[in-house]
Amino acid sequence: MMDTPLTLVQKIERAEKFFSKKQVVSRTSSKIHRLTYKDVGERARALSSSLEKLGVKKGDCIATLAWNHHRHLEAYFAVPCMGAVLHMANFRLSEEHLSYILNHAEDQVILVDEDIVPIVEKVQDQLKTVKAFVIMTDKDSLPSTTLSPAYSYEDLIADGDPTFEYTVDIDENDPAAMCYTSATTGKPKGVVYSHRGLVLHSMALGLSDTLGLSESDVLMPVVPMFHVNAWGLPFASTWFGTTQVLPGPMFTPKLLAELIESEQVTLTAGVPTVWLGLLNELEINDYDMSSLRAVVCGGSAAPRGIIRAFESKHGIPFLHAYGLTETTPVVTAARLKSYQQDLPEEEKLDIRSKQGLIVPGLEAKVVNDRGEVKRDGKEMGELLVRGPWIANEYYKDDRSEEAFRDGWLHTGDIATIDEEGNIKLVDRTKDLIKSGGEWISSVDLENTLMAHESVFEAAVVAVPHPKWIERPIACVVLKDQYKESVTKEVLFEHLKAQFAKWWIPDDIVFIEQIPKTSVGKFLKRTLREQLKDHLVEKA
Amino acid sequence: MMDTPLTLVQKIERAEKFFSKKQVVSRTSSKIHRLTYKDVGERARALSSSLEKLGVKKGDCIATLAWNHHRHLEAYFAVPCMGAVLHMANFRLSEEHLSYILNHAEDQVILVDEDIVPIVEKVQDQLKTVKAFVIMTDKDSLPSTTLSPAYSYEDLIADGDPTFEYTVDIDENDPAAMCYTSATTGKPKGVVYSHRGLVLHSMALGLSDTLGLSESDVLMPVVPMFHVNAWGLPFASTWFGTTQVLPGPMFTPKLLAELIESEQVTLTAGVPTVWLGLLNELEINDYDMSSLRAVVCGGSAAPRGIIRAFESKHGIPFLHAYGLTETTPVVTAARLKSYQQDLPEEEKLDIRSKQGLIVPGLEAKVVNDRGEVKRDGKEMGELLVRGPWIANEYYKDDRSEEAFRDGWLHTGDIATIDEEGNIKLVDRTKDLIKSGGEWISSVDLENTLMAHESVFEAAVVAVPHPKWIERPIACVVLKDQYKESVTKEVLFEHLKAQFAKWWIPDDIVFIEQIPKTSVGKFLKRTLREQLKDHLVEKA
Repeated sequence: MMDTPLTLVQKIERAEKFFSKKQVVSRTSSKIHRLTYKDVGERARALSSSLEKLGVKKGDCIATLAWNHHRHLEAYFAVPCMGAVLHMANFRLSEEHLSYILNHAEDQVILVDEDIVPIVEKVQDQLKTVKAFVIMTDKDSLPSTTLSPAYSYEDLIADGDPTFEYTVDIDENDPAAMCYTSATTGKPKGVVYSHRGLVLHSMALGLSDTLGLSESDVLMPVVPMFHVNAWGLPFASTWFGTTQVLPGPMFTPKLLAELIESEQVTLTAGVPTVWLGLLNELEINDYDMSSLRAVVCGGSAAPRGIIRAFESKHGIPFLHAYGLTETTPVVTAARLKSYQQDLPEEEKLDIRSKQGLIVPGLEAKVVNDRGEVKRDGKEMGELLVRGPWIANEYYKDDRSEEAFRDGWLHTGDIATIDEEGNIKLVDRTKDLIKSGGEWISSVDLENTLMAHESVFEAAVVAVPHPKWIERPIACVVLKDQYKESVTKEVLFEHLKAQFAKWWIPDDIVFIEQIPKTSVGKFLKRTLREQLKDHLVEKA
Repeated sequence: MMDTPLTLVQKIERAEKFFSKKQVVSRTSSKIHRLTYKDVGERARALSSSLEKLGVKKGDCIATLAWNHHRHLEAYFAVPCMGAVLHMANFRLSEEHLSYILNHAEDQVILVDEDIVPIVEKVQDQLKTVKAFVIMTDKDSLPSTTLSPAYSYEDLIADGDPTFEYTVDIDENDPAAMCYTSATTGKPKGVVYSHRGLVLHSMALGLSDTLGLSESDVLMPVVPMFHVNAWGLPFASTWFGTTQVLPGPMFTPKLLAELIESEQVTLTAGVPTVWLGLLNELEINDYDMSSLRAVVCGGSAAPRGIIRAFESKHGIPFLHAYGLTETTPVVTAARLKSYQQDLPEEEKLDIRSKQGLIVPGLEAKVVNDRGEVKRDGKEMGELLVRGPWIANEYYKDDRSEEAFRDGWLHTGDIATIDEEGNIKLVDRTKDLIKSGGEWISSVDLENTLMAHESVFEAAVVAVPHPKWIERPIACVVLKDQYKESVTKEVLFEHLKAQFAKWWIPDDIVFIEQIPKTSVGKFLKRTLREQLKDHLVEKA
């Protein structure tokens, strides 16, 4: 067979050649832009040529600090296709971590949204390798800034060559992009994505049994483009000629609902907190959501109640998936097998609220001290993953050895696997509650709490205990209308109906909101810290 | 990213682990067998272990001469997963060509169906490398044969190790399988498929916009498993856990219709002559074909009339695809883009009767003496293809240089490409009619003839002409009920309504049947030979 490499160049070329009329709908702070893939392709090529003029060479890292919009999409292709590396940086990191990752990646140029400029200005004195700042603004003139030298993105595009050819020699194993992931302790850890990994991952997204992403879809990635390639969706959908709707900065649930309705979105993807927000909005106002063929949910386990609400109440199919920054990210998708279609609704919901089956191309196993766990959906172990879109190290980082051992990524996720092969996350290694030598899943408790009609959000954390080493405490945010009426006793009864006695949390604490990470995940470390003396004091 | 190789081992393991209950329905000469993927996996492993005991090593070629059934499927995995090379041999070749390919591939073991044993017996004295024959029979005892040493497939399985592990080190670029393709002149040419090529090709088959092959499908590959990996379908469907229905030896249109109805087949694939036969059967007898979501057609261009008949008359969606032995084989699929769904029916049929858009992962261009042709759907040129599942040579064959030049496969197919990127084959290079310096497409003329209600089949060939160098002659097989009533004048009128005067064949000759190759394609060489003096004599 020919040794033609798997690279992103072919993807943008396919969109330009065969889907030149298809649209990218992009919301920025000032308006909704409508571009075709012909426009996006020409603008990406112009950007590449201008970056080359700024001195960018093969292998150089270029950072983006940006929301989901067309300019970010252009950079997704302009940078890797010229042989450089797209560093999608999370601008919500602390100043210390942000300057660390920009320096650690040795970013040469930073592309930054106008509203994010103040964040970069704060760290600019710490930046050691950055030679230029490009400001992605709708305005005709460059906003006033202390960043220097600063260029206008649109000026660069206007001066660039829209026919620039991607002739640089790219090996499929060359780096194309990178992201940093927060560590439990210490600095963020970098993950480098190869062209090969991104192409194979895109193929996986197009498979019928995964997302089935198609030309006929209208895709709205709500997951940020600074977070694990927006789950690879912009790469794959450009390749397949899918219409993209990019929701831009500071979106609200109302805005998302309006975009789904007006643009006839068929597929959208984001974390559970986003979908909780959308559910609330759908309860307040009426929207036509009938174009949606699936809401894809990942990033954290979606509470069963969310799935039920989307499907039963609103008739919107919900698809649960799982992945990590280290895995490009899609690892599993929770779909019913053909012979499960006629099971009772609750059993189907049981299956579909798991993380699901490993997608074709990857391998997984769940192991604990005794080896691979039984496929009984009960025995817990750590989930290990391997395959061509799984990282094999953290970028220039001593902590690699911990996670990458014996050819497998040790995910740090505690999971079970059932007879059918469905993986279910029960906890993060660090969030698992180890009570008297037995394991208690904080996630199972949380999901059961969140299935109660009065509960908006719940987090269960391990708290030091004088006798049992650790015991669970539940932190619950009640829905406004239940705040006066629901007591902790009501919720204890709800839990006791479903769990063994020793799983029941030692206390339920009502709080106003659950602290979250910059990508919307529960920040349990903070809660553990706040509650560390709770049981000791009580005892 | 991890450098885990793309191999077939992962595919069979996925079926064994996650789709162990799903079925392979296999028809042999004596009965319908029903196996699970657990069975198929164990039997494949047992076969591998027995082949190893017979002395088969990594890189050895093992031939199969067999119909579509479960034992052939087992060999599809048993051979490549132990590092050997599966040579799917076409037993319908002439004795000279059959012994040539078995010797040229240096086959060590031949797996042969009981009813094909006599064919192998005829060439056995010419075979230089074969150390053993394995007879794939349902019977308890080995049939009497002069082949020696001969083993019973089921005895080998019974003695083999169903837990045999695929531990041999396989590089993704290692050969996994091979097929020979007939040449216009001379011996067949060998094409070697790598593990990487077969895995990537399988992914392409699973993409929503290609075949969308899924676990939920019930697939019946009618295309022979000795012909280009049965279009890669057995590999892909095993990977995805798709139910397979293998129609076995000497099937008839009636048998295919019965299997579709009884097994609730959702997807089936074959050449136009097979579908013409099925159409005839559907006109004679009633069947419930409602399970079919698509009939996939390739191998030759499907006449527009077939597509119309399947869809309008029988409500069966028809999908046109294109590929070659050299291309694993899928290169294009003819699907409407989302914005074409509302076009008038006839315009949609125009698009869908083309070969379609190049699938993600491959690149194509159409070139003639003036360079790349205009994307106007009119200018003709040769189709060139490249990508990771396109061959880069013929196996140990001097004729490679002709077809593989400048990094592209020169397909020998004359095509046009339209504004949307759809490729349409107009002829084989060797069948194109070059009349007075202009090109005439034999395929266009044939399809128009076959669209006439009276015509069963038609082939148009170039015949030497004293003035114009070449002129077209049409050879037509009329449907039985029209044989008395339809004259050549009727068909001339039909053609004149649609083509320029100089395209109209110089004569129409009625014949009883069109000679065909062993895989059902028109054998125009024979017709050209028969008619070579037709116009000279007339003149």
